[in-house]
Amino acid sequence: MNYFLTAFCLGLLATGHAVNAQSIEQKMTSMGLVLTAPSKSAGNYVKAVRTGNLMFLAGHISTRADGSTITGKLGKDLTVEQGYEAAKATVVSLLSTLKAELGDLGRIRRVVKVTGFVNSMPDFTDQPKVVNGCSDLLVSLLGDKGKHARSAVGMVALPLNAAVEIELVVEVE
Amino acid sequence: MNYFLTAFCLGLLATGHAVNAQSIEQKMTSMGLVLTAPSKSAGNYVKAVRTGNLMFLAGHISTRADGSTITGKLGKDLTVEQGYEAAKATVVSLLSTLKAELGDLGRIRRVVKVTGFVNSMPDFTDQPKVVNGCSDLLVSLLGDKGKHARSAVGMVALPLNAAVEIELVVEVE
Amino acid sequence: MNYFLTAFCLGLLATGHAVNAQSIEQKMTSMGLVLTAPSKSAGNYVKAVRTGNLMFLAGHISTRADGSTITGKLGKDLTVEQGYEAAKATVVSLLSTLKAELGDLGRIRRVVKVTGFVNSMPDFTDQPKVVNGCSDLLVSLLGDKGKHARSAVGMVALPLNAAVEIELVVEVE
Repeated sequence: MNYFLTAFCLGLLATGHAVNAQSIEQKMTSMGLVLTAPSKSAGNYVKAVRTGNLMFLAGHISTRADGSTITGKLGKDLTVEQGYEAAKATVVSLLSTLKAELGDLGRIRRVVKVTGFVNSMPDFTDQPKVVNGCSDLLVSLLGDKGKHARSAVGMVALPLNAAVEIELVVEVE
Repeated sequence: MNYFLTAFCLGLLATGHAVNAQSIEQKMTSMGLVLTAPSKSAGNYVKAVRTGNLMFLAGHISTRADGSTITGKLGKDLTVEQGYEAAKATVVSLLSTLKAELGDLGRIRRVVKVTGFVNSMPDFTDQPKVVNGCSDLLVSLLGDKGKHARSAVGMVALPLNAAVEIELVVEVE
Repeated sequence: MNYFLTAFCLGLLATGHAVNAQSIEQKMTSMGLVLTAPSKSAGNYVKAVRTGNLMFLAGHISTRADGSTITGKLGKDLTVEQGYEAAKATVVSLLSTLKAELGDLGRIRRVVKVTGFVNSMPDFTDQPKVVNGCSDLLVSLLGDKGKHARSAVGMVALPLNAAVEIELVVEVE
């Protein structure tokens, strides 16, 4: 806790945004969620591109804290609850990318758009309940700034057989 | 018609946009299309988020005027014509959301982007003919302001087994 | 080569962007890639809409230089290498649209976002390797300005049974 207290105070001195920033990361810590160094992308693309005040984030697949992929199709391999947890885990990856881009999660002004791609069997129709794992955590961490427009859709297949892939558009300072 | 005439005149007094706004809604009325109070979203997300002059709309699934979902997969349960009608019906939901956000559909400057997700069998390849139900109605109601960039793609499954799900990016005043 | 040399010099006289613009098109020529007159869209939509400094491009399906569609599902009809080539070919269509919109490819400031929809069997999980055909060519032609945020996802079906459909968001001058 000493580390966070120190960082918190330095943050207060440095910028008015620091209070919120620490608050988001402290909330994450209290929920047992840990930001990670964002993985390098495999190809000639990057994790996020900023244009004006909008940050477009690449599709992030569902990944555990140890970096392994959460795999499987909803309606066959995974329950709705497991899909919900996979979408929640993906938020940690997305916020890790935002932290690396912004330096400070307090610079998030608004999560504008979430697109949740859910690895689905043809008869699986609960994509919204799965993507709620993302939406609930964003709002839990960011409050009203986390409330977003959203699409939740069923994919026949995803990279590495990931359970979900989620991309964001975020308004930033 | 008295109601519309009164609203029209009040609109004229209130704002220069009212002429167009009434015109769009009057066109809808003349086509038998009725704006609805937008349904509340089920989760921690919202129907639309504005950032600058862009409004990102959530994916809206195909819904009848009575609120029931238009369901089924193209290539199995529904014909192209039924899919076209489903996409057309979805525009009413999308415009209802825009009406609630903007107050006045005359504040639509341009429909920038349409993404049409079509619930499809693996051998169904007429997604564009389905999403034309959306494109044709947008242009019929909004003229050149309704002409958009578009993607039409085939989904293995959609929420509630909806026939289509459509999201928009709209430039607004 | 005389034609290009002349165009290059006229470009230099006309605008400071011309150097880069010619350079992109010259690179394409040296790779045997030829910009085409963009095909008309079939419906009430357009190939691209500009809002502020952002250009949203419609989903472009994989097409050969002669205009025929590159068809087939990954994991059944096409190898990863064939999918890679299909994604690469789609870039030529996308750049042809940008050329028609901008007049000069040197007005591309940054490719912000690529969404790569890959026609996939349920057990095909190499969507990123397919969409690399797009990413690699963009970066080869545009350098750092071609580095984009990206989603690569598996579709149960695509229009005309196309192998891939790709849409872009591009920041332009």
